[in-house]
Amino acid sequence: MKNNKRLDLSLYLVTDRKVAGHLDITDLIQKAIKGGVTVIQLREKDLTTREFYQLGIKIKEVIPPDVPLLIDDRLDLALAIRADGLHLGQTDLPAVLARKYLGSQAIIGLSVENFAQLQEASRLPVDYLAISPVFSTPTKTDTGPAWGLEGLKSARILTDLPLVAIGGINEGNAASIVKAGADGVAVVSAICAAPDPEEAARKLKKTILEARKSHKLR
Amino acid sequence: MKNNKRLDLSLYLVTDRKVAGHLDITDLIQKAIKGGVTVIQLREKDLTTREFYQLGIKIKEVIPPDVPLLIDDRLDLALAIRADGLHLGQTDLPAVLARKYLGSQAIIGLSVENFAQLQEASRLPVDYLAISPVFSTPTKTDTGPAWGLEGLKSARILTDLPLVAIGGINEGNAASIVKAGADGVAVVSAICAAPDPEEAARKLKKTILEARKSHKLR
Repeated sequence: MKNNKRLDLSLYLVTDRKVAGHLDITDLIQKAIKGGVTVIQLREKDLTTREFYQLGIKIKEVIPPDVPLLIDDRLDLALAIRADGLHLGQTDLPAVLARKYLGSQAIIGLSVENFAQLQEASRLPVDYLAISPVFSTPTKTDTGPAWGLEGLKSARILTDLPLVAIGGINEGNAASIVKAGADGVAVVSAICAAPDPEEAARKLKKTILEARKSHKLR
Repeated sequence: MKNNKRLDLSLYLVTDRKVAGHLDITDLIQKAIKGGVTVIQLREKDLTTREFYQLGIKIKEVIPPDVPLLIDDRLDLALAIRADGLHLGQTDLPAVLARKYLGSQAIIGLSVENFAQLQEASRLPVDYLAISPVFSTPTKTDTGPAWGLEGLKSARILTDLPLVAIGGINEGNAASIVKAGADGVAVVSAICAAPDPEEAARKLKKTILEARKSHKLR
């Protein structure tokens, strides 16, 4: 598996076939990567294991080696697809077990929904955290209250782990996420539901890179 | 993992928390084993991965070492729980991949829904097949047409693999399954929905053993 030191969280795409609608997900991913996406997470809750496996194999064939492919929740599929890593939520397998089966080189991420989980995460074998949800979002309804920008700033102070923020992020608020200290932004709808996913990714990436530059200059 | 040569398919319980209703599933499994169940398969489609993991760990602690614990579909949970094996359907991971990660000692079963799948299974690294569904059943609605007793008899002639039949089996028709050549019967409702699961298992086991005896005497 890929060395996780090369993990660039700048623009992190979480796929959702339902949000993507009629678009072919493999095609969407290729376009999004052309537009500047740096990490792909496959999150598919309504496929059979075999369908998810076949989709993952197909996607793995088309994505470039410098863009990590992560699988949401399913350690079995991360193994079977030979993905670069796994993204865990609080209702998924414990990170220690995932690390045991994936090995030290795999990328393992963890969503944290509150400060207690953020604190606990410092003792876990994870490579990055997802601040979830940073804003309220219609895509995922089973989460706790939103962190908000103030929560994200506090999280940034409390952990040394790389942070990606997810939930309700779009072209209009992406800069504020970076300025609050996140290493990157994760999106579903902002790319999957865009009429032109490549262009949507390109604009978001530009916004993120500019915000990072002005944030560092301060 | 357990040596699969000790696999006794006689009375194979597939759990379903929804069918079990108010009964505690751990309690139900213990009672069913007292009644004579020889294999446990955990099949839970509506739990989070963490909940399934926690349930599996709890069940593993209470079942005796001579009763194999199999997990339906989820290789990740079979690994995490350190179960004795995995039961695969046609929409789950390929058996070759499951074998790769579980090792040679794990028990791997496969449901077959038609003769083409039965034939294909002879080339797969599986330890037994489930003839599914042998009768039509309300528990599982995503399957093909029922094999029937004649289909089961033909399957028995066409494969050397141990066979368990599943679907609509109860105290009234269990003997016919054994007489048609199955090594065992798998049930969900006949035990999970019984007012007294231990007694239901005991009666089924008696019926199966008697049918096997009379079948062999012919």
